[in-house]
Amino acid sequence: MKKTALFGLVLLTTLHTHAQDTDSVAIRKMYNEALANGKSYEWLRYLTKQIGPRLSGSAGAQKAVDWTKQVMEQEGFDRVFLQEVMVPHWVRGAKEEAYIQNGKQKITVPIAALGGSVATPPKGVQAQVIEVKSLAELEQLGTDKVKGKIVFYNRPMDPTKLNTFEAYGGAVDQRANGATFAAKYGAVGAIVRSMTTAHDDNPHTGGMRYGTGVPLIPTAAISTNGADQLSSLLKQNPQLTFFFKQNCETLPDAKSYNVVGEIKGSERPDEIIVVGGHLDSWDLSEGAHDDGSGCMQSIEVLRIMKALGYKPKRTIRAVMFMNEENGLRGGIGYADYAKKNNEKHLAAIESDNGGFTPRGFGIVGTPQQKSRVQDWKSLLAPYGLHEIGPGGGGADIGPLAQQGTALFGFKPDSQRYFDYHHTGIDKFEAVNKRELELGAASMAALAYLLDKYGLPEATAVK
Amino acid sequence: MKKTALFGLVLLTTLHTHAQDTDSVAIRKMYNEALANGKSYEWLRYLTKQIGPRLSGSAGAQKAVDWTKQVMEQEGFDRVFLQEVMVPHWVRGAKEEAYIQNGKQKITVPIAALGGSVATPPKGVQAQVIEVKSLAELEQLGTDKVKGKIVFYNRPMDPTKLNTFEAYGGAVDQRANGATFAAKYGAVGAIVRSMTTAHDDNPHTGGMRYGTGVPLIPTAAISTNGADQLSSLLKQNPQLTFFFKQNCETLPDAKSYNVVGEIKGSERPDEIIVVGGHLDSWDLSEGAHDDGSGCMQSIEVLRIMKALGYKPKRTIRAVMFMNEENGLRGGIGYADYAKKNNEKHLAAIESDNGGFTPRGFGIVGTPQQKSRVQDWKSLLAPYGLHEIGPGGGGADIGPLAQQGTALFGFKPDSQRYFDYHHTGIDKFEAVNKRELELGAASMAALAYLLDKYGLPEATAVK
Repeated sequence: MKKTALFGLVLLTTLHTHAQDTDSVAIRKMYNEALANGKSYEWLRYLTKQIGPRLSGSAGAQKAVDWTKQVMEQEGFDRVFLQEVMVPHWVRGAKEEAYIQNGKQKITVPIAALGGSVATPPKGVQAQVIEVKSLAELEQLGTDKVKGKIVFYNRPMDPTKLNTFEAYGGAVDQRANGATFAAKYGAVGAIVRSMTTAHDDNPHTGGMRYGTGVPLIPTAAISTNGADQLSSLLKQNPQLTFFFKQNCETLPDAKSYNVVGEIKGSERPDEIIVVGGHLDSWDLSEGAHDDGSGCMQSIEVLRIMKALGYKPKRTIRAVMFMNEENGLRGGIGYADYAKKNNEKHLAAIESDNGGFTPRGFGIVGTPQQKSRVQDWKSLLAPYGLHEIGPGGGGADIGPLAQQGTALFGFKPDSQRYFDYHHTGIDKFEAVNKRELELGAASMAALAYLLDKYGLPEATAVK
Repeated sequence: MKKTALFGLVLLTTLHTHAQDTDSVAIRKMYNEALANGKSYEWLRYLTKQIGPRLSGSAGAQKAVDWTKQVMEQEGFDRVFLQEVMVPHWVRGAKEEAYIQNGKQKITVPIAALGGSVATPPKGVQAQVIEVKSLAELEQLGTDKVKGKIVFYNRPMDPTKLNTFEAYGGAVDQRANGATFAAKYGAVGAIVRSMTTAHDDNPHTGGMRYGTGVPLIPTAAISTNGADQLSSLLKQNPQLTFFFKQNCETLPDAKSYNVVGEIKGSERPDEIIVVGGHLDSWDLSEGAHDDGSGCMQSIEVLRIMKALGYKPKRTIRAVMFMNEENGLRGGIGYADYAKKNNEKHLAAIESDNGGFTPRGFGIVGTPQQKSRVQDWKSLLAPYGLHEIGPGGGGADIGPLAQQGTALFGFKPDSQRYFDYHHTGIDKFEAVNKRELELGAASMAALAYLLDKYGLPEATAVK
């Protein structure tokens, strides 16, 4: 009995070591393929330079749908198809104007209307400014101090947070809800400090939403340099006024699509593993890091598998989600289609934190699922993937959680992301080829392990 | 007895936990200081934009010596001083010219003379080209195939290496020794593919040396795009010729300096911990990543300690080494001064792999020293410093190994480094503020731990 147990242990250890070796070789090949023959970078060049901005409902978004479908067809994936979704259609209109009127001095500052905002009256809005650092501070001031003014939200992202997404999470309520809170106390507009730790002249746009029962007042982001200047002048002269004019508009919902390509599973074709990013971008930007990178990496995952002759047991799908930026209709629509078609999604990996050098994966799943993934740590660590643990999956794949899908957020290094986020400088040139390729290979490696070993069923509470 | 032992264990554990907490708080403060009040980025702006290129012996190098001395004095370090060293003084002269003559077609390509190369004759050199992938391949061809020709070394850096410094190490023999090998077989010049995995038009200069007993033939780097074009045309027409003209010259050695600033240790002032980088750069470049970053980070380490009121037990020194690029006279001279003055160097940390996001430290030391550093892993991991283990320390601190100093090489992420290395695009704009600051804080954290806990004596063989 003892001898058998020992023999069993030796056998298990040998098998385990053998499997680890096989996996280690397979993963090494994926990185080699991405780094030596990768296509993600040249695809990204096309998407950003030939197609460019692609806000939901725009001609650019439609071009991106057509082109990514074509790319995946040309790569010979087993099936490529579109999923129709209706998306919000917000347009910026003519470029915004803004200045600080300080006595006779008129100082132009860079602003960008927030996505979803209403326009100002055609002649613009001009009013005194009340600066606050938080929604709570505004509520304390109340109607007396706020009525008739422009509220200026100026709490910076905390530069001491190592993970810049945490710093973003700690400041973005001002952008999302600032206008609603300001309107509640009679403000005529809301200006929000751009969501970045950089000090520059780029206004960072982004989504906002109006609450119910309050007037819809116009709202815009101001560059960090502009915000610092405004704040400093307000200290000298609290009577100064701010002028802004914007011409944005929400049109009726438009028809658009998620774009899906897949390699059919050889043993369990009905179990699906998604790799994805979102195809839409803000209108100001080429959407290189946000999120052209994630889309091109997702197609590259399937290309790598095909190029290496790897036949997945399960079906691997690259999904270009539409409308992450201002509605999430693609993510919601994808989960709806999955439910209607009784598709079983084992896992979904999203890349929407930029095409930067890989650091790890955040996991949303059961303790058993997380524990399985921890077993793979030694296979992933040689590629700089040390940070594998709890964390967000990604907005687009979030709705799949309802069916018990394990969610994985690809985590690249976050230091540079908010320099570019939602601005005109989120360009192809800001993406490094090797960093982008390493991200694609990292996603391929995780998809390979998920495909080969599966995951424990999601019976436990998440 | 048993009880006492248990009590002792509990006490030790409590003390250990308490010490870890104290350290964890101290390190967190260092990162906060670097990220919220850091000066390294603005210093780097001055060094790159106001001073610019600073090859050993140049006016720029002297300005950098004067300015860094002044900065450290202004920061109020306990002692700031210069160490005189004589340095090689190579100058590029007028910009190089080069073209491929393919029948009647004349195609201009970007080249840069390698540091230390001789000039061509005033009218340039023109000859047929023999392409090789290695020094060994050249030796096999021998005099018959090589005599009177220009040797074209075209082995690329291996893009599949995760660590780009390994890829560099696998290709740089062509640059360092290519001219000597080519001259041995009668070549009239040597052209070397630039040391980068990027595909672009930037020639990457760098050091080379002539062996003894062979003619000194001119040698230059060609951009990777230029190399690809030349290789492709050679396949069509092996008779084509290559022309190049360069005007470089080696002048008599010049007087220069290492710049040293220190905070005196409160308990063991005679034990020194160095943090350093090299102040010289290639002439083509602002030397932002190579190695303005390392120098500014080193001064920042001392500034952070002062700002936080941290009084080190040992003496902490920031050293700006002169002449890493083409002679290492500063590094050698520093170790000589240390020996002459009976200075004991406990440890030295060099940052010379660029101002990129931190990944870890490479250690050259005894097993006991390495083991001590492994105890600190959990304190450093929260800052992305996962890769702590064997690895190079840094060229400038290398000569200190003779006295048993433990050497630490700061390891930032390596993906982008060779895009910029030794070219005109190694500019301030290529450095990200947060990444630079995180590097400085990482060095400060390691210096803090080294200062607080010391290291086992280097009695064992390294």
